[in-house]
Amino acid sequence: MKPINVGLLGIGTVGRGTWDVLNRNADEIRRRAGRAIQITQVADKAVRRARKITGKRAKVIADAFKLVRDPDIDIIVELIGGYTVAKELVLAAIRNGKHVVTANKALLATHGTEIFAAAQKKGVMVAFEGSVGGGIPIIKALREGLAANRIEWIAGIINGTSNFILSEMRDKGLDFSAALHDAQRHGYAEADPTFDIEGIDAAHKLTILSALAFGIPMQFKKCFKEGIQKLTRADIGYAEELGYRIKLLGITRRAPRGIELRVHPTLVPERRLIANVEGVMNAILVKGDAVGATMYYGAGAGSQPTASAVVADLVDVTRLITADPEHRVPHLAFQPDQLSDVPILPMDAVETSYYLRMRVLDKPGVLANITRILAVSKISIGAMVQKEPGEGESRVDIVMLTHRAVEKNVNRAMAKIEKLPVLAGKVTRIRLEELL
Amino acid sequence: MKPINVGLLGIGTVGRGTWDVLNRNADEIRRRAGRAIQITQVADKAVRRARKITGKRAKVIADAFKLVRDPDIDIIVELIGGYTVAKELVLAAIRNGKHVVTANKALLATHGTEIFAAAQKKGVMVAFEGSVGGGIPIIKALREGLAANRIEWIAGIINGTSNFILSEMRDKGLDFSAALHDAQRHGYAEADPTFDIEGIDAAHKLTILSALAFGIPMQFKKCFKEGIQKLTRADIGYAEELGYRIKLLGITRRAPRGIELRVHPTLVPERRLIANVEGVMNAILVKGDAVGATMYYGAGAGSQPTASAVVADLVDVTRLITADPEHRVPHLAFQPDQLSDVPILPMDAVETSYYLRMRVLDKPGVLANITRILAVSKISIGAMVQKEPGEGESRVDIVMLTHRAVEKNVNRAMAKIEKLPVLAGKVTRIRLEELL
Repeated sequence: MKPINVGLLGIGTVGRGTWDVLNRNADEIRRRAGRAIQITQVADKAVRRARKITGKRAKVIADAFKLVRDPDIDIIVELIGGYTVAKELVLAAIRNGKHVVTANKALLATHGTEIFAAAQKKGVMVAFEGSVGGGIPIIKALREGLAANRIEWIAGIINGTSNFILSEMRDKGLDFSAALHDAQRHGYAEADPTFDIEGIDAAHKLTILSALAFGIPMQFKKCFKEGIQKLTRADIGYAEELGYRIKLLGITRRAPRGIELRVHPTLVPERRLIANVEGVMNAILVKGDAVGATMYYGAGAGSQPTASAVVADLVDVTRLITADPEHRVPHLAFQPDQLSDVPILPMDAVETSYYLRMRVLDKPGVLANITRILAVSKISIGAMVQKEPGEGESRVDIVMLTHRAVEKNVNRAMAKIEKLPVLAGKVTRIRLEELL
Repeated sequence: MKPINVGLLGIGTVGRGTWDVLNRNADEIRRRAGRAIQITQVADKAVRRARKITGKRAKVIADAFKLVRDPDIDIIVELIGGYTVAKELVLAAIRNGKHVVTANKALLATHGTEIFAAAQKKGVMVAFEGSVGGGIPIIKALREGLAANRIEWIAGIINGTSNFILSEMRDKGLDFSAALHDAQRHGYAEADPTFDIEGIDAAHKLTILSALAFGIPMQFKKCFKEGIQKLTRADIGYAEELGYRIKLLGITRRAPRGIELRVHPTLVPERRLIANVEGVMNAILVKGDAVGATMYYGAGAGSQPTASAVVADLVDVTRLITADPEHRVPHLAFQPDQLSDVPILPMDAVETSYYLRMRVLDKPGVLANITRILAVSKISIGAMVQKEPGEGESRVDIVMLTHRAVEKNVNRAMAKIEKLPVLAGKVTRIRLEELL
C-alpha cells in the first residue's frame, strides 16, 4: 500500500522527537501498521533550523496554513502548542478533510468540544494520546482498555515538574524556592513556571481524562486548581511522620450529585504505589467498578516519550484511515450523541479528608476551642499530633487529620479557628485521599 | 443498530463476572460501543447452575459445540480453559466465521500460532486481553499504545499467587510452605498449586507478551521456567539487607543474538516501583526505545477484573465487526507476513546478574578459593556479605552479588564451587535485574 503522508506543524522538542522516532523505527512501524508512515512536509517558522533536521527527506515551509491545505497530506500533526494559532490550524486542517494528531492539552481542554464537533461533522479523526502523561497510553486505556467499566475515580500525578519539586523538597529537605530553582537548572521547569506549579497544566490534562472517563464535555474552567507554591518543608515533614507523602494530584470522581474535578496537593498513604512515584515521572490511578484500581506509569513529558504517543496515534489513524467513521473509537470514549450533562461540582461541595495545621499559643483550653469548632461543623478528627514547644518558644504546631468532611464545612471551621486570638497566622489545609 | 449476540462458553468464575459486568454496565457499554452487547446463549455442562445465573435472559445449553455453530451468534467468548476441548471449540468457532474472545493463556501460548493462522484465513478476530494481567490493558498497550517503539525488554509480575506467597514470606517471616498454605486458605492458590508456583502460568503469559513485543511466533516450549518453591526466608532476608526484594518475574529481552524468554525468582532493587507491588497484584514493566520505561499495574486475576478485559475485547470486536479485516490491529501486533524468525536464546546464553549464597566451613582460604573460581569463569563480584558464624557454629553463609555474567559461565563456576570440600550443600543462585 502507498505510504501515509504526514504534515508536521512545528519541529520543536516533541516535533523533533516525532521526526526521529518515525525515521529510526520506520521498519518496526511499517511492520505493525501495514504501510509506511512518513513526514513529507514540515511547517516551522525557523525554516533553516528545520531544514538542518530534515535534510532533503521532507519539504520545509514557513506557512503552516498552506500545509494544512495541501492535497498530498493525509494526516496533520499539530505540535505548535497554545490556544490561538494552533486552534485555527487544527480547525483548518479538519475543514480540509485532514485527520489530526495533537499533543496539545491546553487546546483540547479549552476548545475540545468545538474541535471534536467539527471533526465529527467532517468525518475525520482527532487523536491526542500525547496530551496526557507523555508516552503512557492512558487515553487508550480509558477509551478502550477499560471500556467495560463504570469509572469511579481517577487520581494522577500528571505534572512532572511539580512532582520533581516535591521529590526534591522531601529527599533533600529543600524549601519550595530552592527545589524550583533545581528544577529550572535541570530543564524540568521553565523560566516562568506558573503553568506547572499552579496546577494549570495538570488541570488541562485532568479535564481531558475526566471527559473520557465520564462521557462529559471538556470543562476546564470548572476545574479547581491549587498549586504547590505554598507547601512548606514543615508540612512535608509532618505528613511523613503520620505515614503520608504529599503529591500534586489531579482527581476526578463520580460523586452522588456531580463530578469532582480538582487539582491540589494531596496527602497519600506512603504505602500506596503512587506515593512512591518520584522525580519527573507520571502515574495515573484509575478505579473502575469491575477492574478495581489500575495504574499507568511512565515519563510524562519529554521529546521521545511524547513522540511515542504521537506516533502511536499515527499508527491508529493509519489503520482506520479508509474505514467507515462508525468503526472508530469515539473521540470522547462515548458516542457523541451519548454525552452526559452531569454537572461538575463546585469545590465547596466536594467531600474529602483533610490535613490541618495550626500554629497556636501554648495555653490551656486552646485545643478544646479548636475541636469544638470542628465538631460544630461536623468535622471529626482521625489523628492528631501536638508538637512540644521548643525552648523559649511560646507557640506550638497542632496537626490534625480529619475523617471525610464537606469542603464548605471545612472552610467555615477554618475561618472561625483563624479568628481565635491564640492563633498565629492562618490554618494550613492540605487535602488527603486514601485512594482505596 | 441491532445488538451484538454473544455466545458464552463456560460460566464459571470469569464467565460469571462477564455476565455480571455486561448486565450491570449495559448502558455504559452501549454508550461507548454504539450498540448493545448481550449474551444470548450460554454453554455450560452444569446447565441448572448456569440457569440460576442467567434466569430467562439467555438460553443455556450443555453442548458447547452446538453453540459455536449457531448462526445467531456473532462472537464466541471462550472461558472454559485448558488446551484440548477449548482448542477444538475455538477452531470450530473460527471455522464457522465467529469472532472469538478468550482469556485462555495456556491455549494461546501453546497453540496460538495455529489459532491465529486459522482466524487470519477466515477473516475473523481473536481477542485475548484477559489472557495476561487480568483487567490490566497490557495487550492493548503493547499492540497499540507502544506501537512507535522498538521494545527492548519486558519484566512482569504476572502471577498473583506467587506474588502473594512472596509478600507473605517477607511481611510475616513465613517459610514457603506456610505462605502457600495461607494462599490456599485465601483462595489465591489451588489445591494443586503447580502451575502457579513453578512458573508455568507466568511462562504462558510471558510467551504471549514476548510474541507481541518482538513480532515472533508463540514459543512456550522454549521459555525457561524456575519457580519459587525453593526460596527460603534466609535468602529473602539477605536480599533485603542488600537493598533488594525477591519477585517472581517473567522477563523477555531483545539480546544481540536472540530473544531471552525466562521466568524465575529475581532480586529487584527495593526502590523500584515494581519491587513494591504486593499481594495478588500484577505489574508489567515495558521498556521501549522512545517511551523509556512504562508500567501497568492492577488486579491480575479474579472474576470481575478478568471480565473487564473480556468485555473490553467485546467492545473492540463489536466496533470493527463490519469493517474490512485490513483495518484491524494484527493479532500478534505485527502484520502476519511480517513476523520475525529471531531465535529464542537458550538459558545458557542469557546474560544477567546473580545473587549467590554458599554455606561454607569457616576456614582460612575458603573465600580466596571461591573468588578464584569465579574470576576464572569471568564473573566479577559487585557486593559481598559474610555472616559471622553463630556460637558453636562452624559454618557461615557467604552471599555475593555479581556483575552481569553469562549463565553458562555461572553454571560452570557453581559446579566447581560445589566440589570444594569446605562447601556444605549446594550453591543457591537467584538471578538479579536492575531494571533500568
